[in-house]
Amino acid sequence: MNRRNMLWSALVSLGAGWAATRAQAATEAPIARQKVVYHLADSDRMNFAFGNIQNHLDGMGGPEHVSIVLVVLGPALRGFHRDGANPDITQRVAKLAKAGVGFAACKNTMKAQDVALDGLLPGFAVADRGGVVRIAELQAQGFAYIRP
Amino acid sequence: MNRRNMLWSALVSLGAGWAATRAQAATEAPIARQKVVYHLADSDRMNFAFGNIQNHLDGMGGPEHVSIVLVVLGPALRGFHRDGANPDITQRVAKLAKAGVGFAACKNTMKAQDVALDGLLPGFAVADRGGVVRIAELQAQGFAYIRP
Amino acid sequence: MNRRNMLWSALVSLGAGWAATRAQAATEAPIARQKVVYHLADSDRMNFAFGNIQNHLDGMGGPEHVSIVLVVLGPALRGFHRDGANPDITQRVAKLAKAGVGFAACKNTMKAQDVALDGLLPGFAVADRGGVVRIAELQAQGFAYIRP
Repeated sequence: MNRRNMLWSALVSLGAGWAATRAQAATEAPIARQKVVYHLADSDRMNFAFGNIQNHLDGMGGPEHVSIVLVVLGPALRGFHRDGANPDITQRVAKLAKAGVGFAACKNTMKAQDVALDGLLPGFAVADRGGVVRIAELQAQGFAYIRP
Repeated sequence: MNRRNMLWSALVSLGAGWAATRAQAATEAPIARQKVVYHLADSDRMNFAFGNIQNHLDGMGGPEHVSIVLVVLGPALRGFHRDGANPDITQRVAKLAKAGVGFAACKNTMKAQDVALDGLLPGFAVADRGGVVRIAELQAQGFAYIRP
Repeated sequence: MNRRNMLWSALVSLGAGWAATRAQAATEAPIARQKVVYHLADSDRMNFAFGNIQNHLDGMGGPEHVSIVLVVLGPALRGFHRDGANPDITQRVAKLAKAGVGFAACKNTMKAQDVALDGLLPGFAVADRGGVVRIAELQAQGFAYIRP
């Protein structure tokens, strides 16, 4: 192999990448697949967050076009305890989880509220390093961030 | 000039670009052009959002150095209906729109509030797939996100 | 080696990169170093922000694994004035600053509250172009954004 060929193929690869990126940005339709992390901490924002997420799924044309993770930390997590859960919340979580929305509970909040994973509504996973670390980690992986 | 030289100078240019970018990051002056999406949902955050955006324009040295889009969804959109709009809000929207700030209204909220585009203050566009989808789309295009 | 082989090895390299990225995402351990900007504007969110940041440091295994900047603007900045500062706040700022957390005060807010840098708790720097510009600048540099 010689240097000229190496350089040439490197530039061709770069050029192809740039062209693809520019074409995607120029058209904006159909919209690219999205990845989004929702941050819920306030109890009085639960229904608003659910509305946002449902609208997000609908606006993207269904869950196959978007990856959504809801990270719950702080007071809002109480609304997701199995014991005493609002039947409407239970139903909404079940519906969204079935549609592929991920639910992550902050480990620190779980400890503070003395609740284990099986004490939360079905669909939750534990954010072992804490909710805020999980939120930052997802953003580093290209997830957009929305605070309802 | 032969192809090898062409390629070589192309790579040198790339290298110069990288070096310039790193130098700029190190000094932080002048600051790079910014793209920012503001997310407004709460009625009681309207003035705060306007203050943030005006400060953003001023801090960047004028609208030619920053692209700002304000996405309005939920209860806050009521404050932007033409009918009954606060004269101060009307004026601030007109001023910011003239400075190049984009205003996007969530289609779902418009439907819920039974308002069409011509029922909103001048300067608005419709976020057809919904406000949250538009917010995530802009972030995927490199916009920073601020929730006033 | 001919050009076809060169392209093939370029693609193989790309493939290896993708595989490495996917493996990292799949295992999630050890987690990559993080950079995060926290946005604090509301006085009643101070303790919540401090809790989030402490959990963030702990969850990452210490300040050597994460760069955190807290940008304070608006009413919340009053809580960081030296005169009349709550002793608990003073102590928490000192502890976090010692752990490497950066504190940035919005220049516009400082002006509005008529306070100079030496009137704020030790550990603060001034965000000269304003808090919102600093927040967007950090995001452009790869910082995740969290609004406590």
